[in-house]
Amino acid sequence: MRLRLTPRDSTYYELLAALARHTVTGASLLAELLGASRPEREQIVARLAEAEHLADDVTHSIKRRLNQTFVTPFDRDDLYHLASALDDCMDAMDEAGHLIVLYKVSELPMAVSEQVQVLQRCAELTADAMPRLRKLDQLPEYCVEINRLENQGDNLHRSLLGHLFDKVADPILLIKLKEIVDTLEEATDAFERVAHLVESISVKES
Amino acid sequence: MRLRLTPRDSTYYELLAALARHTVTGASLLAELLGASRPEREQIVARLAEAEHLADDVTHSIKRRLNQTFVTPFDRDDLYHLASALDDCMDAMDEAGHLIVLYKVSELPMAVSEQVQVLQRCAELTADAMPRLRKLDQLPEYCVEINRLENQGDNLHRSLLGHLFDKVADPILLIKLKEIVDTLEEATDAFERVAHLVESISVKES
Amino acid sequence: MRLRLTPRDSTYYELLAALARHTVTGASLLAELLGASRPEREQIVARLAEAEHLADDVTHSIKRRLNQTFVTPFDRDDLYHLASALDDCMDAMDEAGHLIVLYKVSELPMAVSEQVQVLQRCAELTADAMPRLRKLDQLPEYCVEINRLENQGDNLHRSLLGHLFDKVADPILLIKLKEIVDTLEEATDAFERVAHLVESISVKES
Repeated sequence: MRLRLTPRDSTYYELLAALARHTVTGASLLAELLGASRPEREQIVARLAEAEHLADDVTHSIKRRLNQTFVTPFDRDDLYHLASALDDCMDAMDEAGHLIVLYKVSELPMAVSEQVQVLQRCAELTADAMPRLRKLDQLPEYCVEINRLENQGDNLHRSLLGHLFDKVADPILLIKLKEIVDTLEEATDAFERVAHLVESISVKES
Repeated sequence: MRLRLTPRDSTYYELLAALARHTVTGASLLAELLGASRPEREQIVARLAEAEHLADDVTHSIKRRLNQTFVTPFDRDDLYHLASALDDCMDAMDEAGHLIVLYKVSELPMAVSEQVQVLQRCAELTADAMPRLRKLDQLPEYCVEINRLENQGDNLHRSLLGHLFDKVADPILLIKLKEIVDTLEEATDAFERVAHLVESISVKES
Repeated sequence: MRLRLTPRDSTYYELLAALARHTVTGASLLAELLGASRPEREQIVARLAEAEHLADDVTHSIKRRLNQTFVTPFDRDDLYHLASALDDCMDAMDEAGHLIVLYKVSELPMAVSEQVQVLQRCAELTADAMPRLRKLDQLPEYCVEINRLENQGDNLHRSLLGHLFDKVADPILLIKLKEIVDTLEEATDAFERVAHLVESISVKES
């Protein structure tokens, strides 16, 4: 094992912040997608796939660095899982975007925009929080706010499911819409896992 | 990091037992829900949500304590994953209950009651086993029995799926029933993960 | 804890290779299943279930050994997760086989065979790679190739979903086919997780 005995710890914060900023891009592209006409969608989803690809590269760099470095600023496993959870956020948003194009859905219920707004807020708060890991600054506030947003997302998701089953008579359209809405909910859950890991780090180090 | 050098180890067993007892409540409420009329259901699901909330609080206490304590009775990760897996049992049961109300299902196949009976048995055995972690008492018996129950649950789940696809002609009703039945199966799987973790602890310490 | 201070480390490689060879059997049986007539299928799925059972036993042996042994050739957690991920490959393939019989699907789209070919290739490469863990021999090549295959599987999966939603008018048949195709995709994802863990081990040790 190659050991870096003077690790540039700051790189972890920078890489995690970069990864979180890709989720901000991803969530904005999802919002853009919802407002776009069908012909514009493919091009937006291509940019979303690109953001997902960049996020993958950063995740990979973090993991590789963790495996090669002897001293890490926090518990190695926490950092590893934090990178994975951020990558899961991105993957679920990318998947939701692809499904919207693949399923050629012409119109989505209004509340899907609200789901995406929750994701945008989660992504922004997460991108703001990552650089604060270094000084463990205002992390509890971030965790509380993400929990609140995840709860809001959960309620939105349940009421959306109720709405779909009440209003959509075509079972094939229902299957499509349900999968999109479920995938957006998975993205919110992934942001909550990120916040739980940040909380775990924050408690250990305080 | 604040270190408790004289940790009250017993608290972990107590907290894990409390968490498992919430799953017993959850499984009983699911059984009650199946026998209830539609108007009674909302109130039962509200109690289920309350049990889920209490379980969340206990899970959170366990994890916080693990992060703040230097000495733990068992491997820290095992305890962490054990709390998470018990919480997953509760979450899946709560989710199944919510879906039954949300989807306004008037009647569920008989075998769903059998699925819930398996869950009740799993929850009771798990609540009985948690206090025995301290002395590693009769844990293999517990693990064997949960494996047997999970196997039974798996067979029930597969025959239920076969039944649904044979008998339910309305695709939208099929989607609803399938999701409920799949979510109950997830709860059984989560109990199996709990037992695997208990087995892992038991082997390490023996 | 019983300590084996002179562990026969080679056993881990042998057990992991045996586990991976069960996934090769599983993938071949899936391929056989796709070409079989409905009456032959049950018998093939019974052999698949048997392979899954044997894989379970090996996974269990690996985990038990990890818990009882003090010195392990690699990071204990990596070996633990590697065994779990290989077991997940087998479970998803077994599940896909069971669904094909349970859902009495008379015909599957051609591209499902291509999904299974990807799985066969993944399984073979993985079975070849496990013995090379000992000398960390040509592992990056294996990881790159699995990533390529997973990407190919992902594209196949998405185009299959598009095809199903375009061509299958019967929503109940659509639900069945979608679940089979999704489960095969899960198996490919599980092989990718195996490769990521191998990469992680390989980076740590190099």
